[in-house]
Amino acid sequence: MIVVMKVGSSQSEIDGVINRIKELNLGIHLSQGEEHTIIGVLGQTFPELQDMLRLLPNVEDVIPIGKPYKLASKEFHPQNTIVTVKDVVIGGDEIVVMAGPCAVENEDQLLSTAREVQAAGANILRGGAFKPSTSPYSFRGLGLEGLKMLAKAREETGMPVITEVMTPGDVDVVASYADILQVGARNMQNFFLLDEVGKIKKPVMLKRGLSSTIQEWLLAAEYILSQGNEQLILCERGIRTFETATRNTMDISAIPIIKLQSHLPIIADPSHATGQWNLVSPVALASIAAGADGLMIEVHPDPNSALKDGAQSLTFDNFQHLMTSLKPIAQAIGRKLSSGGI
Amino acid sequence: MIVVMKVGSSQSEIDGVINRIKELNLGIHLSQGEEHTIIGVLGQTFPELQDMLRLLPNVEDVIPIGKPYKLASKEFHPQNTIVTVKDVVIGGDEIVVMAGPCAVENEDQLLSTAREVQAAGANILRGGAFKPSTSPYSFRGLGLEGLKMLAKAREETGMPVITEVMTPGDVDVVASYADILQVGARNMQNFFLLDEVGKIKKPVMLKRGLSSTIQEWLLAAEYILSQGNEQLILCERGIRTFETATRNTMDISAIPIIKLQSHLPIIADPSHATGQWNLVSPVALASIAAGADGLMIEVHPDPNSALKDGAQSLTFDNFQHLMTSLKPIAQAIGRKLSSGGI
Amino acid sequence: MIVVMKVGSSQSEIDGVINRIKELNLGIHLSQGEEHTIIGVLGQTFPELQDMLRLLPNVEDVIPIGKPYKLASKEFHPQNTIVTVKDVVIGGDEIVVMAGPCAVENEDQLLSTAREVQAAGANILRGGAFKPSTSPYSFRGLGLEGLKMLAKAREETGMPVITEVMTPGDVDVVASYADILQVGARNMQNFFLLDEVGKIKKPVMLKRGLSSTIQEWLLAAEYILSQGNEQLILCERGIRTFETATRNTMDISAIPIIKLQSHLPIIADPSHATGQWNLVSPVALASIAAGADGLMIEVHPDPNSALKDGAQSLTFDNFQHLMTSLKPIAQAIGRKLSSGGI
Amino acid sequence: MIVVMKVGSSQSEIDGVINRIKELNLGIHLSQGEEHTIIGVLGQTFPELQDMLRLLPNVEDVIPIGKPYKLASKEFHPQNTIVTVKDVVIGGDEIVVMAGPCAVENEDQLLSTAREVQAAGANILRGGAFKPSTSPYSFRGLGLEGLKMLAKAREETGMPVITEVMTPGDVDVVASYADILQVGARNMQNFFLLDEVGKIKKPVMLKRGLSSTIQEWLLAAEYILSQGNEQLILCERGIRTFETATRNTMDISAIPIIKLQSHLPIIADPSHATGQWNLVSPVALASIAAGADGLMIEVHPDPNSALKDGAQSLTFDNFQHLMTSLKPIAQAIGRKLSSGGI
Repeated sequence: MIVVMKVGSSQSEIDGVINRIKELNLGIHLSQGEEHTIIGVLGQTFPELQDMLRLLPNVEDVIPIGKPYKLASKEFHPQNTIVTVKDVVIGGDEIVVMAGPCAVENEDQLLSTAREVQAAGANILRGGAFKPSTSPYSFRGLGLEGLKMLAKAREETGMPVITEVMTPGDVDVVASYADILQVGARNMQNFFLLDEVGKIKKPVMLKRGLSSTIQEWLLAAEYILSQGNEQLILCERGIRTFETATRNTMDISAIPIIKLQSHLPIIADPSHATGQWNLVSPVALASIAAGADGLMIEVHPDPNSALKDGAQSLTFDNFQHLMTSLKPIAQAIGRKLSSGGI
Repeated sequence: MIVVMKVGSSQSEIDGVINRIKELNLGIHLSQGEEHTIIGVLGQTFPELQDMLRLLPNVEDVIPIGKPYKLASKEFHPQNTIVTVKDVVIGGDEIVVMAGPCAVENEDQLLSTAREVQAAGANILRGGAFKPSTSPYSFRGLGLEGLKMLAKAREETGMPVITEVMTPGDVDVVASYADILQVGARNMQNFFLLDEVGKIKKPVMLKRGLSSTIQEWLLAAEYILSQGNEQLILCERGIRTFETATRNTMDISAIPIIKLQSHLPIIADPSHATGQWNLVSPVALASIAAGADGLMIEVHPDPNSALKDGAQSLTFDNFQHLMTSLKPIAQAIGRKLSSGGI
Repeated sequence: MIVVMKVGSSQSEIDGVINRIKELNLGIHLSQGEEHTIIGVLGQTFPELQDMLRLLPNVEDVIPIGKPYKLASKEFHPQNTIVTVKDVVIGGDEIVVMAGPCAVENEDQLLSTAREVQAAGANILRGGAFKPSTSPYSFRGLGLEGLKMLAKAREETGMPVITEVMTPGDVDVVASYADILQVGARNMQNFFLLDEVGKIKKPVMLKRGLSSTIQEWLLAAEYILSQGNEQLILCERGIRTFETATRNTMDISAIPIIKLQSHLPIIADPSHATGQWNLVSPVALASIAAGADGLMIEVHPDPNSALKDGAQSLTFDNFQHLMTSLKPIAQAIGRKLSSGGI
Repeated sequence: MIVVMKVGSSQSEIDGVINRIKELNLGIHLSQGEEHTIIGVLGQTFPELQDMLRLLPNVEDVIPIGKPYKLASKEFHPQNTIVTVKDVVIGGDEIVVMAGPCAVENEDQLLSTAREVQAAGANILRGGAFKPSTSPYSFRGLGLEGLKMLAKAREETGMPVITEVMTPGDVDVVASYADILQVGARNMQNFFLLDEVGKIKKPVMLKRGLSSTIQEWLLAAEYILSQGNEQLILCERGIRTFETATRNTMDISAIPIIKLQSHLPIIADPSHATGQWNLVSPVALASIAAGADGLMIEVHPDPNSALKDGAQSLTFDNFQHLMTSLKPIAQAIGRKLSSGGI
């Protein structure tokens, strides 16, 4: 951490900062610039220190040095994390595709979708049993019944399933049915939930919050990692900006940034990022070209009767087209699609 | 809801939309413009309908009419809600001030602050026992011990206390100690938590999410109201924007908008909105001038040793100055400060 | 400027940075932290240096120290700037009100508005002759004819006039009619225009860009100041955020921040910030409570027939109400309204 | 345009709206919903009408129907525009690459870069002679000298050149040297400049503004098209968001949206979108995968001594790598690189 004193600070103000640092058993390194005196803090600092020092008289700024997360950083963990779910490997050479309906609506809808996406090459079945919903008057999911349908679809197809858990009290029950637990965008800073999914022995996929910086996202990942769960996957799903032509704005640069700063695998979700089915394929291809380890795609047998997010769901045909377009893109960057159902 | 067809839509495409609407037992009203055919949907619509219709061939846009919330709206509930906590009235003529430390650190810190803010005219004591924290390595609050200290401070001063509840499982215990339960910005769309605080018989204060629109905020309020809890207070605490000079950007216009669109009282939190103690007073005065029903202010006996948010905390002296400046502003807009401790 | 090396940088990488700095005739100050080596740059740095050093091997970050502007900063110019236009003083104890139609439409409209706002206490007449317009099919102003009408209104009322200049080639002609030249939000980074208004001998009001940080705004001010024009006024008019309930989001905190960081007077424009007439008054009062030196308000004899921005224009009655409400707010913060036309 | 009346509007309020519409010689179409009366406006509406109607008593909302631009829209101009500059075709099957230094610094720098990028397969040489610069103390370009160097580089290499024009008064001189005139992000709403480049007979590339919606961008395009210049290219270069890890946020979805809504070719600029050289290649590949017609890339012989934007410039080696990676991506989506210099 570095303390920048205002121009014209007196010796006693500078000493005030130095003494405060020393009281906390930290060392200092003094540097006199043309205009500003700068005091480097030596030793193990902590997040609150920034505020503590900023308040001292004539301090202009206090600048933290280094990243505030360690377990999630590539610097301290150079080897890439690979998460294995049954025979699906996430974060390796192969591109993984998670597909399925936004919400589990009934057995037929789920099973028919599972079979179709598997046939088209998807590796993991997605489907929401507990659904976050902006309005209390919207469909909120089938809950436990939905979890059971997911388990049944897994039995019938052999595909691992991923589904969202929304509250700490549900972690155990969701973990008993699902192969991967998803923490949704609105819960990225639900810290008790992060603690709980950090304690289980199953993989977790952590979506980026709608207005979270990449640093906050990696700090949320740090919560899970610091509880001991290292089977962690990140998912970029768009951020909130002023643009209203799309539901969110896919932050495509977040993909290579995560690859540079972290060892965790990263999945892209073009369905939520765009909110519009005819933008899903181009943004999916772009995400793989940018280096994502996989995709999460919403597919529905009949999007215009979907109970949730129909506008962003692909039909079976459109999903198959996407998978066909995806193959040469994966090859172009030296990767391939995971074998899938064919 | 209104469906706008693309220029040059065929009769069979228009019929496709009409038939879908009729299948759902809704009526239609057809209007032929210069370029666009427009189909009004008559009857009780539902949120998912917008997506369902948008996907039909040659539909350009589907526009919802009216507000998606009812219980929170002024249109359907013209009389202003007044929340009474002991002898403090929130949403009436008097301006209410909630003050205290960001986090409860120990009995001395809490009690000395409670006494000082009460002497300066605050009506309600704030203090966090459960603290959301971006980093897992930061202070996360004293938990149950903190709640007990708050209860003790109430006993000694007679001030009602407000504190945050972060997870559905904690609602009962927090409600057994606190007079008002706060739902924090990061939990504004923690829908299970909204359900639970909607079931209790105590007042709730719902902070606006960092990237939530006013409409989403009122829909979150609708969750609580629809569970039967009408003792609800809103709190504007700043939104996330590109500007980095402040921690968040206080959305000052949100205050008169809430007054126009809703009957719920609204409190402003300039401490979190700015993140900087020397901006708190001007933004506090501005909030009251804009029509807020009260303030929530962070005060600490010694901000530069605070375990949490010291940079935005006022000293006792600064808080007293703020209260002194506030009085004539309240009078200027025809209101007054609630009597407080003096 | 401070260079932070990555953890585990080699001596030769550190030397690479040091040598590059010395090549540029700057000094260095080396500091070895627990994890990071830090190199302070001593001497007169320049904006491009940050990029130059960031690219050297194993540099993690390069952090500028101090503000990039000097002429606009309070640090180097502690005395507040006061701009005097005829007998109106901007930036002193009195609150100044600029009012008038968004666009000059015809002589009657302008003159009747001028007389009414003057009677209600406004000090300066605003009116657009050259109008920026998002669509090429919208009204773009009367141009030179509009300037002449403004000059005539000044003659008849004695009020100084402010109007926008949109392009460097028009600076002279606008300056020959107007008392204050306004640089609009969309032109805040029209650098050639900033140069030209920096060369004239008339006051300039610089509006903040829709997506400009406060630092960028002060750098734009620096352009004007560095050409020698010190009669400069800033104007906060809202920034672009994700919220769609208002046209822009008034950044109320920008007002006290400008007061802390700069010596320049600051005006608030609640008409453009909100885009909605019934939000103008509360946001105007809030701006004065937050410390603004004045207001810019759109007023129209008949807003629902206005050629431009009718939705945000006050009627004469509403403007008079605003002025009546403003007086006690100004007094509450120890200021008063400038005498005005009464 | 559609007018939505508030719940409980009286007949005389409804008549007020109807009469206002009829006064303007427009027709109406009345529709009575469950809660809201809705009035459709028939005939040729205009942008200001929305505000005019919104102000009438008990109007809740006024919703425009259809897009506010015509010349730029695919609906009214279904055939894709192809811009030809010498032998380079922009908007056809082939991917075009514009490359070169951010700013022209001297003849050697420009010529050596021109030759290298041409050898690697670039088709068009970029280089700034007039440079927008946030700080008045930064390098602002060589001006006319820079234009001459660009012309010389074109002579020696045969590559067409693109360079920025910043002010209406410079359009003629820039057009006399350059093959394509660029309107930069900060000037996207410099309406006089749009008018001027709309009058020339040379191709123009219009960059998206930092905080401009796609609709505003297409309206800016409409300015140029409506002056008669149809040789227009769009360029997505990132928008301003809360994320600070990149200089801007590349809006990757804007690429397919432009393809759906407009007939104009679209280029992506990953250098400005990211601001960081090691993110340029992944975002460039992503842009082509998403459907962009080409790229604009900053290349410098020695980025760490660049006078402008060194941090985002590729070295010759890195540019060659990018071109090598690009080829299979272009093939994967059924396109190819334009032949270039090889």
